[in-house]
Amino acid sequence: MRIGFVGLGPMGVGMAKRLLEAGHELAVFNRTQARADALVEQGARRAGSPAEAARNAEIVLSMLANDDVVAELTLGPDGIAAGLPAGAVHLSCSTISVATSRRLAAAHNEAEQAYGVATVLGRPPAAASGQLFVMLAAAPEIRARVQPVLSAIGQRTFELGDDPARANLVKLSLNFLIFSTIEQMGEVFALNDKGGVPPALVFEIMTNSFFNAPVHRNYGRIIVEEAFDPAGVGMRLAAKDTALLLEAATQLQVPMPMGSLVRDRLLSAIAQGDAELDFAALSRRARIEAGLPPGRETDD
Amino acid sequence: MRIGFVGLGPMGVGMAKRLLEAGHELAVFNRTQARADALVEQGARRAGSPAEAARNAEIVLSMLANDDVVAELTLGPDGIAAGLPAGAVHLSCSTISVATSRRLAAAHNEAEQAYGVATVLGRPPAAASGQLFVMLAAAPEIRARVQPVLSAIGQRTFELGDDPARANLVKLSLNFLIFSTIEQMGEVFALNDKGGVPPALVFEIMTNSFFNAPVHRNYGRIIVEEAFDPAGVGMRLAAKDTALLLEAATQLQVPMPMGSLVRDRLLSAIAQGDAELDFAALSRRARIEAGLPPGRETDD
Amino acid sequence: MRIGFVGLGPMGVGMAKRLLEAGHELAVFNRTQARADALVEQGARRAGSPAEAARNAEIVLSMLANDDVVAELTLGPDGIAAGLPAGAVHLSCSTISVATSRRLAAAHNEAEQAYGVATVLGRPPAAASGQLFVMLAAAPEIRARVQPVLSAIGQRTFELGDDPARANLVKLSLNFLIFSTIEQMGEVFALNDKGGVPPALVFEIMTNSFFNAPVHRNYGRIIVEEAFDPAGVGMRLAAKDTALLLEAATQLQVPMPMGSLVRDRLLSAIAQGDAELDFAALSRRARIEAGLPPGRETDD
Amino acid sequence: MRIGFVGLGPMGVGMAKRLLEAGHELAVFNRTQARADALVEQGARRAGSPAEAARNAEIVLSMLANDDVVAELTLGPDGIAAGLPAGAVHLSCSTISVATSRRLAAAHNEAEQAYGVATVLGRPPAAASGQLFVMLAAAPEIRARVQPVLSAIGQRTFELGDDPARANLVKLSLNFLIFSTIEQMGEVFALNDKGGVPPALVFEIMTNSFFNAPVHRNYGRIIVEEAFDPAGVGMRLAAKDTALLLEAATQLQVPMPMGSLVRDRLLSAIAQGDAELDFAALSRRARIEAGLPPGRETDD
Repeated sequence: MRIGFVGLGPMGVGMAKRLLEAGHELAVFNRTQARADALVEQGARRAGSPAEAARNAEIVLSMLANDDVVAELTLGPDGIAAGLPAGAVHLSCSTISVATSRRLAAAHNEAEQAYGVATVLGRPPAAASGQLFVMLAAAPEIRARVQPVLSAIGQRTFELGDDPARANLVKLSLNFLIFSTIEQMGEVFALNDKGGVPPALVFEIMTNSFFNAPVHRNYGRIIVEEAFDPAGVGMRLAAKDTALLLEAATQLQVPMPMGSLVRDRLLSAIAQGDAELDFAALSRRARIEAGLPPGRETDD
Repeated sequence: MRIGFVGLGPMGVGMAKRLLEAGHELAVFNRTQARADALVEQGARRAGSPAEAARNAEIVLSMLANDDVVAELTLGPDGIAAGLPAGAVHLSCSTISVATSRRLAAAHNEAEQAYGVATVLGRPPAAASGQLFVMLAAAPEIRARVQPVLSAIGQRTFELGDDPARANLVKLSLNFLIFSTIEQMGEVFALNDKGGVPPALVFEIMTNSFFNAPVHRNYGRIIVEEAFDPAGVGMRLAAKDTALLLEAATQLQVPMPMGSLVRDRLLSAIAQGDAELDFAALSRRARIEAGLPPGRETDD
Repeated sequence: MRIGFVGLGPMGVGMAKRLLEAGHELAVFNRTQARADALVEQGARRAGSPAEAARNAEIVLSMLANDDVVAELTLGPDGIAAGLPAGAVHLSCSTISVATSRRLAAAHNEAEQAYGVATVLGRPPAAASGQLFVMLAAAPEIRARVQPVLSAIGQRTFELGDDPARANLVKLSLNFLIFSTIEQMGEVFALNDKGGVPPALVFEIMTNSFFNAPVHRNYGRIIVEEAFDPAGVGMRLAAKDTALLLEAATQLQVPMPMGSLVRDRLLSAIAQGDAELDFAALSRRARIEAGLPPGRETDD
Repeated sequence: MRIGFVGLGPMGVGMAKRLLEAGHELAVFNRTQARADALVEQGARRAGSPAEAARNAEIVLSMLANDDVVAELTLGPDGIAAGLPAGAVHLSCSTISVATSRRLAAAHNEAEQAYGVATVLGRPPAAASGQLFVMLAAAPEIRARVQPVLSAIGQRTFELGDDPARANLVKLSLNFLIFSTIEQMGEVFALNDKGGVPPALVFEIMTNSFFNAPVHRNYGRIIVEEAFDPAGVGMRLAAKDTALLLEAATQLQVPMPMGSLVRDRLLSAIAQGDAELDFAALSRRARIEAGLPPGRETDD
């Protein structure tokens, strides 16, 4: 297929590579052009704007940092919507708000372009190896059309029905499950640490009994090893996602006290100097409030 | 070995059976005597009091409902301590407070009896099949002595050092991880339900991606199927455990906002008529607060 | 002075009347024109648009429902900014976000118009009798110029310095103090009610001892008398204000757990059918969660 | 009247002095005997035990630090109950739990002694000048009998009916209103401080508008002036009171999320080194979480 790809961050670059490897014809755009170099060497065409990446595409994927960037690169002067042929699909993969997603849907609809959402779960190595989990929501016909894309980037696709924004809602929810699991572990580790049982031992018990999901193993390990720097994903991004979650919860009138707690914890982490750490460092809040040193380093 | 067993609730009866099957000589006591019948048929000796169950034992296990019962059946007139030979071990398996556990330790120590704690993770079927996870804390020599017991009842033992109360603290922590995971899922299911994505679908995505631990699978299924009645474990027991957790947290000076939230949710469930349901029904709080019907039944 | 007034809701109409009574020349605009009739009879001039109300004014006051309306009637095609003479002042009195306030400041600045914020504390009767409390922030020269306006509408002005948005921040904070005091009373009344001490008695003790501020007396009385319908100020407005508060808190990186609690309570009230009641009905959440009937009426 | 007085802390000593001044015959007991010296000089008789203070009394008042001390000095070997004549009254003024209060009631009832509760609101200077607020609960006949005592120590008595424990519940509730108002102000001061409006200015606005109760004025001033050391009343006492409140809330099945928040804040303050400060320093939590220095002193 002829595919455009907009947004070559750590996730996007891996996804784009998978599409190339699957034999698709790829036009790529990134604001920092150098991030496209390796893909161009592998056969991708460099586009000078999102519109150009979209020009002859059957499908354009976008994988961008936040709502503002997605809105600008989609609806702005040289955005995706300006180039995408009538009937072609914009498949949005970014973690953005339900509200922005609806806005994109309306704009594409007006331009007689198709719009679908395929949010993904997984970190950059999973993207590069086609092992992402994909949450797909779009009209049935669109869902069928994007299958070749999804089979290249993901290990499994969950179909969420026609309303594209549902895939945004579920993605925000899964991120919240990660953040709140980190808070859970933070509280439990702090309690047991003060009670004489070190985090590593609690972690071992958890992951060898009822609490052995990837969310426990991956983030528990980061917490136990205090591997917060360099950040895999930063604290501000987690705060942004949580803000979008609570915005959706407000819209749908769903109180989420655990969501509010995560929000406050992330704000507190950022305000107290942990903004540049991996978001798993939100677990440090529970330690600090318990009067424990934030980590093994006493000069922290 | 000569083993006494005090407390034949759904968990205790399975654990006692495993000890019999492993060839140990067993004296059993339960306040409601009929619960001992099947074990007596399988070769156990019926004791008329905890003291009698302990009289010639090398090890006495207790598996009882709460702090008060454990204190009474251990330290009361005909309690375990009144019968246990000097040097023999009381191995406490109940989910009780750190404070009561310390009190038992002091009393046994004064009577020159040994005391250890072996809390367990798992529901009755796991107890009956020797598949429990065991958290063991006791002096090293005691830990060695109780191995034959643990190998009969558990699939794996985690050793937590010398201070017996640590095994109580960890057990309360693991229960909290279960309760707070239920709250997590409750909030996420409510949000997505109002957003058009049914709980069963969110559950499928969770358990086929990063959130596939037994805690997710087992309790998520109960929530999705609304299998709250009859209760596996009731709401009041969860409220009791959470109170003990927060008591330990107060003692150790560890703020646990997620613990407080679970506490408030359980209180709310009990106050609003869900006291007799399985504790997984605390997930209904999020639904109700969001204005959703508590379950599929509209006449609920 | 020549004054324009935009927004004749229950608050605005009282403030405008006071300005007329103080002898100022008044041009008034309201989208629902009929709300201007009484003022026109008293001598005000009816303007066909915000721009027209601003045309010859030295000062234009706006008192509107929310950020969107303020933005539209200020910056839209026939908005205040389109009519206001260079050098004249737009004095914004609405309860809006810090962010929108900054946006207005920038737009007026670009148009060489002056901008100040004078938020007010008090309900409509206080507005009509010139008994409001005013929080004023603007450049010193502007603060001096608007004194004749403030002396007509308020009993006291608090000066908050040069940055206009500070008066928005303080206003949102005072509203939060009201909402959270209602939650406080809700919890205390529910607890004591279940303990045998009725709300009216607790209210009497409070307001005759250390808790006798207007915030206690006014809202405590509404709660005790369950005078929620018709609403003085509605639940959705309180939810909007709380959202703006938390938006400012996010921007300034200040975790506000009590703010989050109020947010969740208001969402819960709206989701469960109390949206049309006075916001003091958020006190009912604590009753309901405690298993008490929401009010005296059993068929509620 | 012949009155016994047990417990001469900062509150008790003032209350006892008022009783002497009102012409009553007073026998006083305190564990640290020296605290009775000034009263003895003014005409009180020194008792060697609570029992002795109660021996010929018509009424014995107790004003002690916590549940354990009250239980011991009432029910212990030489306690009040051991000396109090049949039919005489023990009037308990301490801030203790509902549960302990019920236990005292039962014990006195069995000994054919009368029991009532008169909790008080006010700090030591109010005690010394007879300006306390009194919450009284007891059988009507007892309430009548203790009037001469109450008119000496208080400016106003609120009658709460027959069940003595209600006066304990209301007292815990009023303390909670104080603590949670401090948290309110802590959050608002932190937010505005980061937004450029100093706490002193917010305090001025509050106390000159709708938020001018003693609870606002007294504690707001302490916060603004950072007058936390020496402590008027310490952090641990506030934590104890909050634990008793939540214990009562659990018993009555009333979720109190704001109560839980105060609990977590106090634990956090104690764990992080503020245990010896006045409890008003719990306001510092909001500052610290927002990344502000805890106080003006940079070396804090």
